[in-house]
Amino acid sequence: MKKILNRSGDIVTQSIQGFLAAYDKYFEAVPETNCIVYKNRRKGKVSLVIGGGSGHEPLFSGFVGKGLADASANGNIFASPNPQVITETAKAVDEGKGVLFIYGNYEGDNLNFDMAEEMCGFEDIKTAHVRVWDDCASAPKERIEDRRGIAGDIYVIKVAGAACDAGLSLEEVLRVTEKARDNINTIGLATSPGSIPGLNKPTFELGEDEIEFGMGMHGEPGIERTTMKPVDELVDRMYDELKREMSLNSDDEVAVLVNGLGSTTLVELNTVYYELDKHLKSEGIKVHDAEIKSWCTCQEMGGFSITILRLDEELKKYYDASCCSPYYAREALI
Amino acid sequence: MKKILNRSGDIVTQSIQGFLAAYDKYFEAVPETNCIVYKNRRKGKVSLVIGGGSGHEPLFSGFVGKGLADASANGNIFASPNPQVITETAKAVDEGKGVLFIYGNYEGDNLNFDMAEEMCGFEDIKTAHVRVWDDCASAPKERIEDRRGIAGDIYVIKVAGAACDAGLSLEEVLRVTEKARDNINTIGLATSPGSIPGLNKPTFELGEDEIEFGMGMHGEPGIERTTMKPVDELVDRMYDELKREMSLNSDDEVAVLVNGLGSTTLVELNTVYYELDKHLKSEGIKVHDAEIKSWCTCQEMGGFSITILRLDEELKKYYDASCCSPYYAREALI
Repeated sequence: MKKILNRSGDIVTQSIQGFLAAYDKYFEAVPETNCIVYKNRRKGKVSLVIGGGSGHEPLFSGFVGKGLADASANGNIFASPNPQVITETAKAVDEGKGVLFIYGNYEGDNLNFDMAEEMCGFEDIKTAHVRVWDDCASAPKERIEDRRGIAGDIYVIKVAGAACDAGLSLEEVLRVTEKARDNINTIGLATSPGSIPGLNKPTFELGEDEIEFGMGMHGEPGIERTTMKPVDELVDRMYDELKREMSLNSDDEVAVLVNGLGSTTLVELNTVYYELDKHLKSEGIKVHDAEIKSWCTCQEMGGFSITILRLDEELKKYYDASCCSPYYAREALI
Repeated sequence: MKKILNRSGDIVTQSIQGFLAAYDKYFEAVPETNCIVYKNRRKGKVSLVIGGGSGHEPLFSGFVGKGLADASANGNIFASPNPQVITETAKAVDEGKGVLFIYGNYEGDNLNFDMAEEMCGFEDIKTAHVRVWDDCASAPKERIEDRRGIAGDIYVIKVAGAACDAGLSLEEVLRVTEKARDNINTIGLATSPGSIPGLNKPTFELGEDEIEFGMGMHGEPGIERTTMKPVDELVDRMYDELKREMSLNSDDEVAVLVNGLGSTTLVELNTVYYELDKHLKSEGIKVHDAEIKSWCTCQEMGGFSITILRLDEELKKYYDASCCSPYYAREALI
């Protein structure tokens, strides 16, 4: 494993500094942290702060920008940001209308963002939070609050950003964002591990011909370890899980994300969509929009996930609002 | 090597069909080919057609869109499109104002695009071409026409697209595009091979601790094979090559692209920019714009390249024009 890194110095700090140097027209640091702020952030509205462990780029910093988050609170590699830097980040963007936090549902993040909300309270900053738990392979539906947040984070952030832009109150932004969170599900599949930057250690072990359905971004257990299969069989299985989970039917209109986990190529991800499209068409599900991106990664991990967001008219309006960051631009191409 | 592909069927066709299914609002196929056309392509202006071998995604199809190319002619994996499909693609977008072809300077592409231009001539379609040869490690300056085209393709396409949009004549679009091509250089570095989809074969061999400066996308020889080094030393060496090649100095204003070759993560690519930024700043070079992307890849190849485009007022105007495709959006975030 050859990682292109320095011999010394903090890996996350150098990476964030590089990102800020390249995109300095758009972003600046929250002083003395690895957190970033969009220079042209919202004024006079509810602010949106996202965050979590580093190592999953472009998530989270790549989703700060126009129509998206005002700031991201970035932790160390695979580790939650601490309550102090989350609070500093919220203070840097608060406009007196309240701050919504969106993050993946992980124990460390839950603890630290909860403490940050307490600290914000001492500073008279109104807060609320949405924990994304889209990974339907990570726990049964009855224990939905044990599920992990993965690629579904991104569409939840997208919808929340548009709701903030629309000038809604914190309570209303929270309602809309929870609606997005409650209508999104993801299932992933791992073919090979990523490595932990700086440690040169794989994040998990998988045999030469093994794959695991539902494996988490950091190697958390999935729902089935099996042998490698052709993509049509992989997508069949994954679509069935999502269909059952979401009771998908021909009345549904959805936004879809095929997300690469790191080293899986676009030739492969496009082929995943080629197979997925057959299911969606044959079931009569209306695809309002689709993306094929490597947005929520775990270093050079191999594999992909499929995310489906069920839309109603309200969610569609916010999903369709334009947005722009170095990694996510949504405007009418036509 | 576990590639997420089908047991049978054409790999490129399935991949392109998947891309078209996901982005069907924007693109359609040139009938009976793997070539794609932007549905809202230019009207009454010079048309821009790009192309080359598949396997380097998002290049080329990812750079078809608003302000970019009208169409891409896509070959098989690592193989040039044939003259017939190039001609069909040109016919699908020609508006009687002429078609400019942009492609990387490879023997197969040169031959096939030349034949396509002849065939277009029989159909009374006026054509011109620009071969991109930005890879300064692939041949000495005196034999510039032996150099390969790599990530520099993208900014050349960007400038050309804006020149087409501006309503310039074919001769003028050609002049501007050649100016971009003549002011762009790239140097790459390989840390590990990609694999050939369908063959499960690495594209080249590199030892456990070996890297190669200047190695081509398909494993073509570079300028030095050496042991792995920390990123500051890698970037030092690469910046020196570009500086000498381009005689970079403090009068220069540039656009920069740090491009990942496939599996190299954003933590690493951001760190490359962190080091590169020190050189650019200490030399007083004005960075007009920068991107950190994996735009020109070779499957899961490891490594990166650095591209520098020297700008004058004319090139800057075209570089700055807005553009939008699923992979390249340029609009003022601010």
